[in-house]
Amino acid sequence: MTEQSTERPTLEAVAARAGVSRATVSRVVNGGDGVREPLVERVRQAVEELGYVPNQAARSLVTRRHDAVAVVIAEPETRVFADPFFALQLRGISKELTAHDSQLVLLLTEGRDDHARVARYLAGGHVDGALVFSLHLDDPLPGLIRGVPTVYGGRPGWSDGSRGAVYVDCDNRGGAREAVRHLVGLGRRRIAHITGALDQTSAVDRLDGYRDVMVDADPKLIEESDFSPAGGERAMRELLDRCPDLDAVFAANDITAAGALRVLRERGRRVPEDVAVIGFDDMLPVTERTDPPLTTVRQDIEDMGRLMARLLLRGLDRRTPGPESGPAGTPSSVVLPTTLVRRASA
Amino acid sequence: MTEQSTERPTLEAVAARAGVSRATVSRVVNGGDGVREPLVERVRQAVEELGYVPNQAARSLVTRRHDAVAVVIAEPETRVFADPFFALQLRGISKELTAHDSQLVLLLTEGRDDHARVARYLAGGHVDGALVFSLHLDDPLPGLIRGVPTVYGGRPGWSDGSRGAVYVDCDNRGGAREAVRHLVGLGRRRIAHITGALDQTSAVDRLDGYRDVMVDADPKLIEESDFSPAGGERAMRELLDRCPDLDAVFAANDITAAGALRVLRERGRRVPEDVAVIGFDDMLPVTERTDPPLTTVRQDIEDMGRLMARLLLRGLDRRTPGPESGPAGTPSSVVLPTTLVRRASA
Repeated sequence: MTEQSTERPTLEAVAARAGVSRATVSRVVNGGDGVREPLVERVRQAVEELGYVPNQAARSLVTRRHDAVAVVIAEPETRVFADPFFALQLRGISKELTAHDSQLVLLLTEGRDDHARVARYLAGGHVDGALVFSLHLDDPLPGLIRGVPTVYGGRPGWSDGSRGAVYVDCDNRGGAREAVRHLVGLGRRRIAHITGALDQTSAVDRLDGYRDVMVDADPKLIEESDFSPAGGERAMRELLDRCPDLDAVFAANDITAAGALRVLRERGRRVPEDVAVIGFDDMLPVTERTDPPLTTVRQDIEDMGRLMARLLLRGLDRRTPGPESGPAGTPSSVVLPTTLVRRASA
Repeated sequence: MTEQSTERPTLEAVAARAGVSRATVSRVVNGGDGVREPLVERVRQAVEELGYVPNQAARSLVTRRHDAVAVVIAEPETRVFADPFFALQLRGISKELTAHDSQLVLLLTEGRDDHARVARYLAGGHVDGALVFSLHLDDPLPGLIRGVPTVYGGRPGWSDGSRGAVYVDCDNRGGAREAVRHLVGLGRRRIAHITGALDQTSAVDRLDGYRDVMVDADPKLIEESDFSPAGGERAMRELLDRCPDLDAVFAANDITAAGALRVLRERGRRVPEDVAVIGFDDMLPVTERTDPPLTTVRQDIEDMGRLMARLLLRGLDRRTPGPESGPAGTPSSVVLPTTLVRRASA
């Protein structure tokens, strides 16, 4: 490990040279107002003569801009790298932040026990704001980062109706309704649902959409799962044991549906002839490689990431005072539409 | 977006209450020396009375510890999420940092154009140090972060022999030698090599290991590639067209070997009967799923990540003055051994 040895001129040296206080230099250097023009001129001259470069950490204390945005995925890092959903969302975020020369700072954790540390980093003045996704209902993180400008991926499920939170989501309930209606239209009557993790609003909303259509659904046709491939396999086995007459499955996401397809094949059920299957997300590497290719509800995950970043940056710009900034106010949440993509499985 | 509205007592308020200068308060709060005991007592009392909590960014300017370590993978984020090598290395790093309650800060980029911004963040006082891997030879990053404690993953290929750099690597050359010797021991004579990206020392070292054994190798048997599956496919096609009599392939990593296996099958060559294939890394999700399962040179990627984090943290502890710290000095680089893992492909 090597260490910078060149001595940089200090703020104090600039103050001494200009014959003003440290605080005045700080205000001038950081573009703040309230300093009379002759003093500003003297400080500028001293800065130039000494070749003073403001320390970024010190400057950030005043300007409060770091040109860096944190991304927090409220899942263990093993999950972050195993589920292509997060890679897609990060791709959108990365493109948008890079276009604004803002650094993407991904805070990884081993699990929820580490969220207090994450909150400390977020509140510690290292980033301009945070993009938080895959939040579970009882996660303490939002309460710990109240002072940090944040945009959520997916509607937070706070008991006060998520008031004040800015989020980007897709129409989970409407998308689920369309999927189940499509199965009904195919003449299916025993339509099962494999849910996502029900401590996440996306899973609750998709279940609600299923129930909107299957008003008197047999409760035995609903199996709780967790958005994972292994969870999808377990749920499909459970459902087949319990309801051998089922003729369709709506799974809460694509990787769960892929797990269900493996079990159906293992049990000798033909898809879609015996059992029609629909997923959710339309993650291309998954949906195009399943056997048969998966009919699914498409949400544009990469675009959602891009939009989250855009909303956050727009909100930050509004906080920075200046003649070019728009009217004050926080950006609004956005709910994007979904589309049913028909392939071979339903 | 919500904002903290509670007014916190400032450093100035503490200084006024204690009747000392701002600088004195700062020194006391940050545990610095050089303040006389009666003054220290007065400041402590004022801090207590006002309920002053030092701003973390401000405190970090003095203590220079953030309990956060940056990870920089010198590849575009698309590559980071597509290549399981990085997920494994991050797993090891994450476990080690979490055990020391240090936050893993992954800095993602769209490509090398963003490395100046990464360097700005690293030098900006947001992390205690950096773990940098997948460095390419002409990357300007190391020069830009000279003041930041850094441990490299893989030996940097600087012209001065990487003097002063601390790195963790595996015995790339020795591992490659063992792989090629194994192929020779199987009676193979026309042994090809698909290289990695030759602007990385790991690729150069593996090529050197191949040449150590194949002293008079036909240059037509060496095809330059880039560590990617698509690159492996391209290289294998090229080699088969040029040297249809080849009877073995040593690929610079597992995902390249997986690409080569696909092309060999496509061209009707049986593995290992017609062509024996060996990879490098032993990434289990890859090597166990290839057809046939892949013989490879094992390096413990997760452990390398863990070791990088450990070396960095140890180095940081040594920089912190105090009676409990060990003798000054920088930690040494580590080169880990490799093992040949025999499966069906060779």
